Parts: sequence; C-alpha cells; structure tokens
Amino acid sequence: MLPKAVQNLIEEFSRLPGIGPKSAARLVFYLLSRHKDDVKNLSVAIERLLDDLVTCKSCFNIADSDPCEICLDENRNRSALCVVEDPLDVISLERAGFDGLYHVLGGVISPINGIGPDDLRIGELIKRLRMSDKIKEVILATNPSLEGEATAVYISDKLSQFDIKITRLARGLPMGGDLEYADELTLSRALEGRKEF
Amino acid sequence: MLPKAVQNLIEEFSRLPGIGPKSAARLVFYLLSRHKDDVKNLSVAIERLLDDLVTCKSCFNIADSDPCEICLDENRNRSALCVVEDPLDVISLERAGFDGLYHVLGGVISPINGIGPDDLRIGELIKRLRMSDKIKEVILATNPSLEGEATAVYISDKLSQFDIKITRLARGLPMGGDLEYADELTLSRALEGRKEF
Repeated sequence: MLPKAVQNLIEEFSRLPGIGPKSAARLVFYLLSRHKDDVKNLSVAIERLLDDLVTCKSCFNIADSDPCEICLDENRNRSALCVVEDPLDVISLERAGFDGLYHVLGGVISPINGIGPDDLRIGELIKRLRMSDKIKEVILATNPSLEGEATAVYISDKLSQFDIKITRLARGLPMGGDLEYADELTLSRALEGRKEF
Repeated sequence: MLPKAVQNLIEEFSRLPGIGPKSAARLVFYLLSRHKDDVKNLSVAIERLLDDLVTCKSCFNIADSDPCEICLDENRNRSALCVVEDPLDVISLERAGFDGLYHVLGGVISPINGIGPDDLRIGELIKRLRMSDKIKEVILATNPSLEGEATAVYISDKLSQFDIKITRLARGLPMGGDLEYADELTLSRALEGRKEF
C-alpha cells in the first residue's frame, strides 16, 4: 500500500538502534516534507562515511588521517594514556576535558558474543607501551559493566610487566543523582571510595 | 576533534525529529560498525525518496504512481472519504482497517505558523466532491488537537453545501487506557459520547 521507496527507507531506518517502525515512518515522512537539498545532504553525508575515514594505526580511533589529530597534537599530555572500548567513549572523555592520549580497544571481552582478548587491540596496546617511554599512567576507562570490568582486570594483569601506574575511573554516585534511587552496588562502591573533605 | 565526515553526519542526523546530538552520535558509530553494503543501502534508500515518488492528484497522498493504488482500487468502498492531515495518518487508518478513500489536506489551519485554509487542499476537496456522485460520507479525521478540531469545524462548514453525511472520529478513552490517568477533557468527551450496552 505504501510506495516502495517509502517502505524501503522505513525498513532501513528500523534497522538502526533505538528506532522502531513507528519512529522510522515518522522520520521518512519528515524527510518527505523537507526540501530536496536537505534530503540529498543526508544521503551524501552517509555515503561519505564510507570514503573519507581511516583508522589511526596508533590509537585505533576513527579519524580523517593516520596518525590522527589527537596522536599528533604535541600540546596534549603524552604521559597519560586512556584505554576505552570504542570511539564514542573518546568523544565523552574529550567533552569531560581529558587531554592525554587514547587507545581504542574496539570492544570488550565477551565470551557470550565470542569476543576474546585476541579480538581486541590489547596486543597493540602492549606493543605501544613497549615502544614509548613517555607514558607514565594507563587509565582503564572501560564501561562500569560486568564485561567492562572483566576486560579492565584482564588488561591490568597484562600490563603489570611495565613500570607504569595503572588506574581506573572512580565509581560512585553520578552528579545530580539521588541517594534514594541509587542501586546497592553503586552505593556500596561510593561508600568504599569515600574521601575526606 | 572528530573526523569531518562523522561530525557532518551527526549534524545531519540531529536535524531529524526526535534525534538529539547524543543519539545522532550513537547512530553514526553504529553505522561505522556495520558492513559497507548496509551503509550504502541506507544512503541509496534516502536518495530514492527524491526520485521515485509522486503525489496522487486525486487524494494528494504520496505514491508510486498517479492516480495512486488506493484511488484506483475498485474493491474499496468508494462512498466513504476520509479527510486526514498527512500521509502518516493514512498508514494508521489502513492499519485500523478503513477501506474507503482518502483526501490528504497537507496540514491543519494554524495561524501561528502562517498556515491558512488556502494552504491546504480544501479547495481540491470541494472540487472532488462536486465531481463525484459516489461519495456519501466524509469522515473528518484530523487530529484531536486544538488546530485539528478547528480545521474540522472549518471544513464541515464549507461542506454543508453538499448533501453528504459529515462525521468525525469518536472521542473517548483510548483502549488499554486508565480512567485514573485520563485527562478531564478526554473523560468529559467519553461521558458525552457514552453508548447503551
């Protein structure tokens, strides 16, 4: 009943995370109500994702060039290396003001999804630490999930061979959060990590 | 800091309704994690929106051909014409099992947005009714919003010249709704429209 082009784009949008068939239909009809140039711009922007991107062979972040801007920037703190799961985490840490270097793992160890340590850039991390004498601290900034924690433990174990400080992000109550609604684990971590005024 | 292609697509996605900068970033990185063919498919599907669609000159719905499939379908009930705001509403009514014809207004009267009766297909509706002797009922299925109701009142006034039944969708409690959470207006409409068992 729907035109094929509309039906097809609804299906394509529905494949994206967090977009169900109803939101997908709304997006398509929104596009139909826009100027042709706007629609063309979106299509071109998606297509350019395929052509214009490279992976930085030093930090494995997605970038315009290899090595990436961050790895080349001499004004950044080159003694701190932050290990993250994926490029989205780099954006968050940049927003939070981190000014060191990054190492993107490309995921977490997850036996249930068939992802082992060899599927991540852990070997590359070790190689990188071996080649650099500037890095004094590795911050393991994997997500505070079961798999993220396990991956952090695994990596910290592998890095014990180096004379480098290994840290991880503090666990505790999120800013703007409410004690009443905090789960037990978060609260117990916040208690463990309590600090003097 | 982000690659230009990524930044650009995040901006394009953020322009879509209901997608903020964070969801946009998530969508982009999801696409980056997909196979190139999937990304290409999405880009092509958007581009095809521009080429393959026409507006049916009878009902003003978006379609593959003019006149559209619905207007051509001799098995549909050609005595009932449902007036809707936009093509999305046609999908909803099709799902609900309506089997008559449609007339898509292309919006509602909204002085605040500078949309008057002449910007909608009200003249075309009157012309259509004048040319057809089959239509016995016009269902005004604009949204139950202030502007939708005002548009329905305006149209019903214009259609009073025809010897045609003019109806509108029932107002009342939504199925699966809860009396306790219904707003006063909905509940008062449900009371007004109460029916005998």
